[in-house]
Amino acid sequence: MSAGGWQEWRAADAAEWLRPPTADDDKYSRGVLGVVTGSHEYPGAALLGVEAATRSGVGMVRYTGPRPVRALVLARAPEAVTTAGRVQAWLLGSGMDPARRSFVLIGELEHALASGVPVVLDAGALDLVGAHSAPTVITPHARELATLLADREVRTSVEEVRSDPAAWAARAAREIGVVVLLKGAVTHIADPDGAAITVTAPTHRLATAGSGDVLGGILGALVAASHERLANDAHALAPIAATAVLVHGLAAERAVAEVDGGPIVASDLTAQLQRVLGQLAG
Amino acid sequence: MSAGGWQEWRAADAAEWLRPPTADDDKYSRGVLGVVTGSHEYPGAALLGVEAATRSGVGMVRYTGPRPVRALVLARAPEAVTTAGRVQAWLLGSGMDPARRSFVLIGELEHALASGVPVVLDAGALDLVGAHSAPTVITPHARELATLLADREVRTSVEEVRSDPAAWAARAAREIGVVVLLKGAVTHIADPDGAAITVTAPTHRLATAGSGDVLGGILGALVAASHERLANDAHALAPIAATAVLVHGLAAERAVAEVDGGPIVASDLTAQLQRVLGQLAG
Amino acid sequence: MSAGGWQEWRAADAAEWLRPPTADDDKYSRGVLGVVTGSHEYPGAALLGVEAATRSGVGMVRYTGPRPVRALVLARAPEAVTTAGRVQAWLLGSGMDPARRSFVLIGELEHALASGVPVVLDAGALDLVGAHSAPTVITPHARELATLLADREVRTSVEEVRSDPAAWAARAAREIGVVVLLKGAVTHIADPDGAAITVTAPTHRLATAGSGDVLGGILGALVAASHERLANDAHALAPIAATAVLVHGLAAERAVAEVDGGPIVASDLTAQLQRVLGQLAG
Amino acid sequence: MSAGGWQEWRAADAAEWLRPPTADDDKYSRGVLGVVTGSHEYPGAALLGVEAATRSGVGMVRYTGPRPVRALVLARAPEAVTTAGRVQAWLLGSGMDPARRSFVLIGELEHALASGVPVVLDAGALDLVGAHSAPTVITPHARELATLLADREVRTSVEEVRSDPAAWAARAAREIGVVVLLKGAVTHIADPDGAAITVTAPTHRLATAGSGDVLGGILGALVAASHERLANDAHALAPIAATAVLVHGLAAERAVAEVDGGPIVASDLTAQLQRVLGQLAG
Repeated sequence: MSAGGWQEWRAADAAEWLRPPTADDDKYSRGVLGVVTGSHEYPGAALLGVEAATRSGVGMVRYTGPRPVRALVLARAPEAVTTAGRVQAWLLGSGMDPARRSFVLIGELEHALASGVPVVLDAGALDLVGAHSAPTVITPHARELATLLADREVRTSVEEVRSDPAAWAARAAREIGVVVLLKGAVTHIADPDGAAITVTAPTHRLATAGSGDVLGGILGALVAASHERLANDAHALAPIAATAVLVHGLAAERAVAEVDGGPIVASDLTAQLQRVLGQLAG
Repeated sequence: MSAGGWQEWRAADAAEWLRPPTADDDKYSRGVLGVVTGSHEYPGAALLGVEAATRSGVGMVRYTGPRPVRALVLARAPEAVTTAGRVQAWLLGSGMDPARRSFVLIGELEHALASGVPVVLDAGALDLVGAHSAPTVITPHARELATLLADREVRTSVEEVRSDPAAWAARAAREIGVVVLLKGAVTHIADPDGAAITVTAPTHRLATAGSGDVLGGILGALVAASHERLANDAHALAPIAATAVLVHGLAAERAVAEVDGGPIVASDLTAQLQRVLGQLAG
Repeated sequence: MSAGGWQEWRAADAAEWLRPPTADDDKYSRGVLGVVTGSHEYPGAALLGVEAATRSGVGMVRYTGPRPVRALVLARAPEAVTTAGRVQAWLLGSGMDPARRSFVLIGELEHALASGVPVVLDAGALDLVGAHSAPTVITPHARELATLLADREVRTSVEEVRSDPAAWAARAAREIGVVVLLKGAVTHIADPDGAAITVTAPTHRLATAGSGDVLGGILGALVAASHERLANDAHALAPIAATAVLVHGLAAERAVAEVDGGPIVASDLTAQLQRVLGQLAG
Repeated sequence: MSAGGWQEWRAADAAEWLRPPTADDDKYSRGVLGVVTGSHEYPGAALLGVEAATRSGVGMVRYTGPRPVRALVLARAPEAVTTAGRVQAWLLGSGMDPARRSFVLIGELEHALASGVPVVLDAGALDLVGAHSAPTVITPHARELATLLADREVRTSVEEVRSDPAAWAARAAREIGVVVLLKGAVTHIADPDGAAITVTAPTHRLATAGSGDVLGGILGALVAASHERLANDAHALAPIAATAVLVHGLAAERAVAEVDGGPIVASDLTAQLQRVLGQLAG
């Protein structure tokens, strides 16, 4: 397989997909993101994702993961709200083990998927893709994509996905019917109608624990903030996803520069998000 | 209805309503603010409000909300005291659901309202206005004001309040007999005797979760710090309220500038309060 | 009564009383401070005092207050150790209610007072002064000093102490046989042998909740760091106490400058301590 | 005894032993460090070590100490993962009392030592050295080394170790068959094959509580990041250990400079690690 016609996403492309607030906005009209991530085993994913989302220009973030995790989330992000309520988009799955879902959690995930608003499916919720019809972005890495395709009886392997990510991202988008954001040093974003966008990471230092959780938070926030546009234009989802990856990379680039080229941790990314978004919006 | 004679509040107007400490002051004479906010459902409101209050020039903040929330509050603001005691003003209601008040909480709120010192009523305590006679500021947004007026059999709607906030703020102040601080891109402050002040938000980025909780904290602190003046001059309450809104907006403006025009979170505001107050005091 | 011969303490005086580490030092030889402060009612005092002590140049801080408070302390100051062990000085009493001492706490306080190492007695442990013979500094404000003197059948009042703090500090030092650090806009330090030092606060913004807890931490650390000198020279205690007050004031001055003259909170002081000590040591 | 041929480690020597990420890396290939440190008695050691490790360029840190400590760890370092899983190196022992090992902990330590991957043994796990065959660095101070040698029926004392640390470090490396990192104002690193490296601390302010815990974290991270190299070259362990000590010292030097020569706390070191590593990597 091979792939052509991929567009490398740039700062100038991204600006259009951010949604600045206006005088008529309140926190609800700016978009509310519902987040069901983290677990007793992996609470850190929730902390990173929620913090990233609150800093990415959404009106409100509702986090409704496990109760002890909520306290940790609030200590980092007191702006987050930890009760259920109306949301305009969902972020599901970071920091969860799909083999250990409680009945309560299954109910919450089903509720979210049935709500009809756009959904970002990450990590421990990837297996739920296809169980719903709302606009959806999935955020697998190569191994996770290979598994998803295998579940659909498409023969492939991690190695094959890694050697031709463009083709496999596009194929998965068509097969599964969702926007596929295949993570890597070059991230490939494909939608079922043929959108094909790449984003090249500006630094290899992004390959660090929690980095993907931060990306989930950015993406969830951008989707929630664009809920009105998405209601009218399903094709907006791929460019919004590409914009999230671009923001993530630019945040890493700034974070690395701030430590003179040294290593970074995932929470360094959240500290840079607001500036990156400010500069992109121009 | 229409409204005239509203004064737009400026930095030069605000300076007079701040109360700098003198050589004779101790933390008690500088004013103690009692805070009953937050809940198991919404602890974040307490964190943001207390942190904002401690940074707004009061001598001490007493936070006596739910016990688990106190631990979260102290982790952010170890200067706060979490025991009951004498206070010179109260901040009540942020982050509370009026439909879920425990008997203990009802007792605390009644005690506060009966104490005779100035009171700021926010969010989940707005329905208590009128049950006491102390100098009072309420801080509704349009929907909350419409509900308050409806409770008093004044026919209106959110849409009407939004289309003529000046008139409805003034009307509510007269009807209810308190200072009304009607939040919005332009905030209207009216008192029963005709004071009419507007404060225009310098950035739309203020419309974000927790922003109102921070405003409550600033306002409570400024009221507590001016307790001696307020004891002699009931008309001081409206300009103090306007000053709080101005400080809130200036903090947002600084916070947005610091992230190159990007989005902000409510706790970014608290980080700017001390500088804003320093510059206003000249 | 009147007082003469008081020396105003300056930066040049302080340098000599700081104890910089040498190549032969380890964390034990640099001094270990034992801290028994804070309570379920007032945990914040422990957080502020321990954080201040760790940043004031001591080798180690042992905090052995109530267990839930230890978790809060460690979250702010992971350098602190929360087990009992050998110490070279004690800080006792901040954030405690003397009317609510548990048997365990009484045992801990008695153990500390009987250990023979220098002791700083603050707030809720002031009443214990006299029950031991180790070198001691007490840190009352005017009301607390009046109470201490009344307990010793010396007739006075808060007003009298406030109107002539120099005389009453000196009198108390003689009567009680300890170094008295009488807090105020001008702090008076007196020892039983006639040492008489004043430190004028460079800003009135120091009169804020938790400010005294930070002073306790600084003082405890400086005493522990000078444990060898104190073992040989009891007269060192008053100048060390004066140095602690000077450091506290300089930290406030820096903190206020950093917020353009605005209000400060007690934890702003701890953030400045290391720089102040660095500049004093030259 | 005397010692010759010791090499003082410099920045230029260190660069080669850092392992920058490449385009082909993911968080797993960059190295995963398993950490079993801290205890109910000494949780702070875990906080400092994990935070230091996450900032030293490893792909992931797994912390599996006591459950209440995990919550404290995550609050500081949400990037850490608190579940068991594959690791490429272990850091064991900081903040543990060897006399108080639970059965669970003994099982975890034995599991780690039997896994065959490189191990850093610190503080409360030093007594376990020799119970396994994996590449190992131990990090004693003089007293701990004297105890270790005494356990092997080598007659010495703290004083002797202090007076000739080079000789005793070398002797211990030969006797025990591991890399010995003997901490001090000058740290001596020796391996059984004769490697002999010194690192002179650039500041005496490093002698502070928690400093050794931070060193453990840096060292564990560098070892995990070099797991591929170590699999092929056992002699790499001593220079990697020396590099960790150098990074630790440079972080202290930067931290001291940042506070104008004042005292530092251990967590100040972690805040400088990323920059130090960035500048070393050039």
